[in-house]
Amino acid sequence: MPRNFADRLLDEIDAKQNPSCIGLDVRVPEIPEEIRRKYLQGHKVYWTSDIGARRKVLLDATALAIREFNEDIITATHEIVPAYKPNIAFYEQYGAAGIEAFQKTLDIIRSHNCIPVTDAKRGDIGDTSQAYADGHLGAVELLDGSLTSSDINTDAITVVAYVGSDGINPFLDVAKRYGKGVIVLAKTSNDSSGELQDLCLDRLHGGRKVFEEMALAIHLWGEALKGSRGYSSVCAVVGANYPEHAQIARTIMERNIVLVPAYGFQGARGVHCMPNFNDDGYGALVNSARDIIYAFRRPEYRGMNHKDAARHAAIVMKNDLHESMKQAGKFPW
Amino acid sequence: MPRNFADRLLDEIDAKQNPSCIGLDVRVPEIPEEIRRKYLQGHKVYWTSDIGARRKVLLDATALAIREFNEDIITATHEIVPAYKPNIAFYEQYGAAGIEAFQKTLDIIRSHNCIPVTDAKRGDIGDTSQAYADGHLGAVELLDGSLTSSDINTDAITVVAYVGSDGINPFLDVAKRYGKGVIVLAKTSNDSSGELQDLCLDRLHGGRKVFEEMALAIHLWGEALKGSRGYSSVCAVVGANYPEHAQIARTIMERNIVLVPAYGFQGARGVHCMPNFNDDGYGALVNSARDIIYAFRRPEYRGMNHKDAARHAAIVMKNDLHESMKQAGKFPW
Repeated sequence: MPRNFADRLLDEIDAKQNPSCIGLDVRVPEIPEEIRRKYLQGHKVYWTSDIGARRKVLLDATALAIREFNEDIITATHEIVPAYKPNIAFYEQYGAAGIEAFQKTLDIIRSHNCIPVTDAKRGDIGDTSQAYADGHLGAVELLDGSLTSSDINTDAITVVAYVGSDGINPFLDVAKRYGKGVIVLAKTSNDSSGELQDLCLDRLHGGRKVFEEMALAIHLWGEALKGSRGYSSVCAVVGANYPEHAQIARTIMERNIVLVPAYGFQGARGVHCMPNFNDDGYGALVNSARDIIYAFRRPEYRGMNHKDAARHAAIVMKNDLHESMKQAGKFPW
Repeated sequence: MPRNFADRLLDEIDAKQNPSCIGLDVRVPEIPEEIRRKYLQGHKVYWTSDIGARRKVLLDATALAIREFNEDIITATHEIVPAYKPNIAFYEQYGAAGIEAFQKTLDIIRSHNCIPVTDAKRGDIGDTSQAYADGHLGAVELLDGSLTSSDINTDAITVVAYVGSDGINPFLDVAKRYGKGVIVLAKTSNDSSGELQDLCLDRLHGGRKVFEEMALAIHLWGEALKGSRGYSSVCAVVGANYPEHAQIARTIMERNIVLVPAYGFQGARGVHCMPNFNDDGYGALVNSARDIIYAFRRPEYRGMNHKDAARHAAIVMKNDLHESMKQAGKFPW
């Protein structure tokens, strides 16, 4: 039996004494100039006048630059953080070339014994969800009937449950079998998340809000995937910028680990994330993307290259979380 | 200005006199034996003992077999149906090799002047949704700052709006600019769709159900993307197996085209789809996947190859829809 995802994640958080995660959301215009120049020159894109060929060369160069940027960031920070969360949207938008870069990124994360979490927000019905679950978490069938782990195979994936449990069950089954994690959207960090998630249900549902109903479902889905440390491999997304929601969600989903977006660029700091932690100091994984990977663009890191700036920013975030955890009486180390 | 998606789709429906769509949801174990054998032999997978090399060869062979199967189906049916809907889950699960097959499938659909609809059920927040929208519907930025249409570029994409309008707006903007369609999940065809979608809201929201609230949002999002034929390029998914929901959704979303899954294998026939059509005979695109692409496995098509069986099944579906439309007084031709 493979080890339970929640156990592995918590062990890695302990090993680094750091409940944080770096979001690898690479926007091409933000890639450092030195990497851009290297791949533009390396691919001699200026020496062809065939538009189709030039496009193909540029597309490959773009994918390679994304990959190298990620490799730099991971190499500079892997001793500090337990997990990385590439959002597949930024890779998928470049088609097969982008997915290739995504796959290499997962490889690099694993090569440093860190945990890759794919932010994909997938969710479909029945055997379509099964196809996603098999590809991202389990095994896929090849033409000769043999099974293989796909190149996009990862340790956990974010999913959305608008279609109900039919869409989630295949992920739960595969996660259980392969020791993987399923992270379900509950309360997202965007401004308009309340449009649906904060709607109040009728008295038959105790006047709960939609996100509370979702949290309840996540709690129930999680029961069958608990690890030896008491936490479930069924996790939830709850934005750090909605601390009141986080408090309620924490109560409903006592043993589900919460992936917390919105740290840093989106405005939240350690103190805002505290409602997502349990009193034992566990139960949350705080994600920051832009504030870490593009730290070299921030005034306070002027003169540093992207690797040093990212490493520095990751340490600052860790220290901020430590400070907040101590003040909240939730520091486990 | 590119032409409006709804106008293009309705024109193509008129040209074929057929409001149906073939779902290209290729499951590898279901690919016809002759195609499987061709690619297993062609790739000489039996002549290598290097497991990694064998896996790579098999993965490529699998992707090529998927592509050839789709090409056969499209070649056999493109004169009958206006649109094809590959669900990206079945390609993505094979990583970059699968996405390559997906891209080729889109090319084949376009080469026959049919409309490709990507069933992806994407939905994220802010600039992550923007990345999906740029990749699937618009243009992506390359390393030198130039813009290009991605290899996964398609005519319309299914999206999920759990995060609210922040997640949908980037798709709407890109769709408007590039003449594309956005198809939002309202009431899905699976058994458990009611778990969230049928929850009743409080009196502040008129006691509406969640799917009705979503239909209302789809109606409003659609206002800015209406074409010259009066329909919007913002469409909705409403399962054929929930005719009562369809009736309500039709009333709320008067000018939104409804993509109707669950025809065929999932049990619905033309008669069940009628509430999704307006009295003018438009407003719905009925999808069937398994019943068409795997028709060769059905007893009534015994002895036919997969191409002839698919063509036959597509015609049977068209005739069934015609019959039901005539009986419902919704036949526009």
